[in-house]
Amino acid sequence: MNDGALPTVADLGELELIDRWRSRIGDPPEGERWTGDDAAVLSWPDDRLLLTTDMMVQDIDFELAYAGGEDVGWKALAINASDIASMGGRPTHAVAAVGLPPETPVAFVDELLEGLLAACDRYGVSLVGGDVSAAAEIGITVSIVGSALGKPFERSGAKPGDAICVTGSLGGAAAGLILLRRGIAGTDAVERLKRRQLRPSARVAEAAALVPLGPSAMIDVSDGLAVDLGHLVRASGVGCEVDAGAVPIDSDIGALPDVDPLEIAVLGGEDFELLFTIDAERTQEASAALKDTSTAVTSIGTVTETGAGARLGDRSLDEWRTRGWQHLRTP
Amino acid sequence: MNDGALPTVADLGELELIDRWRSRIGDPPEGERWTGDDAAVLSWPDDRLLLTTDMMVQDIDFELAYAGGEDVGWKALAINASDIASMGGRPTHAVAAVGLPPETPVAFVDELLEGLLAACDRYGVSLVGGDVSAAAEIGITVSIVGSALGKPFERSGAKPGDAICVTGSLGGAAAGLILLRRGIAGTDAVERLKRRQLRPSARVAEAAALVPLGPSAMIDVSDGLAVDLGHLVRASGVGCEVDAGAVPIDSDIGALPDVDPLEIAVLGGEDFELLFTIDAERTQEASAALKDTSTAVTSIGTVTETGAGARLGDRSLDEWRTRGWQHLRTP
Repeated sequence: MNDGALPTVADLGELELIDRWRSRIGDPPEGERWTGDDAAVLSWPDDRLLLTTDMMVQDIDFELAYAGGEDVGWKALAINASDIASMGGRPTHAVAAVGLPPETPVAFVDELLEGLLAACDRYGVSLVGGDVSAAAEIGITVSIVGSALGKPFERSGAKPGDAICVTGSLGGAAAGLILLRRGIAGTDAVERLKRRQLRPSARVAEAAALVPLGPSAMIDVSDGLAVDLGHLVRASGVGCEVDAGAVPIDSDIGALPDVDPLEIAVLGGEDFELLFTIDAERTQEASAALKDTSTAVTSIGTVTETGAGARLGDRSLDEWRTRGWQHLRTP
Repeated sequence: MNDGALPTVADLGELELIDRWRSRIGDPPEGERWTGDDAAVLSWPDDRLLLTTDMMVQDIDFELAYAGGEDVGWKALAINASDIASMGGRPTHAVAAVGLPPETPVAFVDELLEGLLAACDRYGVSLVGGDVSAAAEIGITVSIVGSALGKPFERSGAKPGDAICVTGSLGGAAAGLILLRRGIAGTDAVERLKRRQLRPSARVAEAAALVPLGPSAMIDVSDGLAVDLGHLVRASGVGCEVDAGAVPIDSDIGALPDVDPLEIAVLGGEDFELLFTIDAERTQEASAALKDTSTAVTSIGTVTETGAGARLGDRSLDEWRTRGWQHLRTP
């Protein structure tokens, strides 16, 4: 045992840690096998498979000063589910690889798993296996498979004349990060913003509802509207004209008086809303399709010919993007 | 730019790094989409899917003092391919999540990708996506999907009376690690041992050749014979009697005069050989089936009733296992 009061992963050992996870994960349905072997065996009646991976690293994607194990586990799963959703798919099965410093309290690891499983439960995903290793810092890589509900949405399908739409609101997750780092507690608005950062929603049901409408392109907003819209227009070989006044800024951002609401909504990232293009005559249908989910759809602009440039308000996306976050650049 | 001569990942930035990977990965076949979107889209005609994940962490699974980027990339892919092989499957598609300290030379990252792709090429796998993040240490998590070639091999199917067989030889990878850490160069035997540690082979072709023979259980030897055979007999609810004299010890281990060859073969791990049980009358067929691969099959013992215990030579597997490596335990 270590000197501290809490057992650490070093105290527990790798095999016992894996056993704890296994027993918590539970039994697979007839015909499948999940943990306990070299790979999971899954039923797969579909002829198409969506596959993605995303990692979260301590002090890059979260800080222990404000994020608990459940927060980290939830988010690691949700950001992957969001990637499947934005392809027009239903996430089904996930594996998680977790790196843990030996002195990590076991309680943190248990919470991490609870968060993972809570998000799995929310998005209809089965956690079917994983790996664990010692590491200098806490890191979690979730890989997830899903089935396409129709023709997968590409980033590259936007056509001039299409409307540019986004679900929900933007900027809340970045505002929440600022509040968490400042250690501010307080009003309901403050707590909601912090939760947007710590427990993002993946728009799985929303994406499924949009499948029948055939959006021409879709991406989830993980790196910020300017960056992700830039990915979409570049991939599609088009331009865009976004009305800055139409961007759905999270209404709670007023709780942060010293930031420019538009700037944080355009650059903030991590809102995991769906950004999509669709025949301009179908934007009302898109709103109606999402009514059951209580998630708004806002039309924020128009896809243009590439020669017209890619603009958001009075700046080009490039001008906005150079202000964006790139994790690997030193400040 | 940093002060050193080599560009680092901080100099390059995340987006450009991803672009380099993408362009190197190349184009998917008709009907599939790999990198460049939120998730890869794969054709999947099969009704069963194998899925697994495995991570490698700097200073735990490799040290930069002896391992280059190509070594790390190769091994990260090969250990995952081995997991699919030992399920009786063919690995098909992989994603890789890579954590990189900002000061990592870009050359290292390029080599990492080359190693990944070389192993992909060797085992018939397509690298279809990934993620990259800053991190305090180098880490790589590969997740891989594959199709089952028949009924997937379970760890739990061993029956009393079955023969216990292992492909190839054991102990070489652990001996290679000792040599690498000591910085010893030298004879062909020394270099072969080091290569077994740095560039392990996944027994993909061998597993495929064994599928028609219906092994009753299979596992790959990643944590050492004692540990992995322990997993197999526990999962099957059986005992075992292994003839210590029959264990196929890597013949190069003589290059390391100060280790007990049997001990390193039983406890060493990372050889990624296939350990399987099979009807005792089919061991000759198993050898014949692997003739084309030039990989030997050695019968090392017999599955017994659980009451007889699990023994390897004059010790129980438990006695051996307490000597095994558990990465998370502090020394």
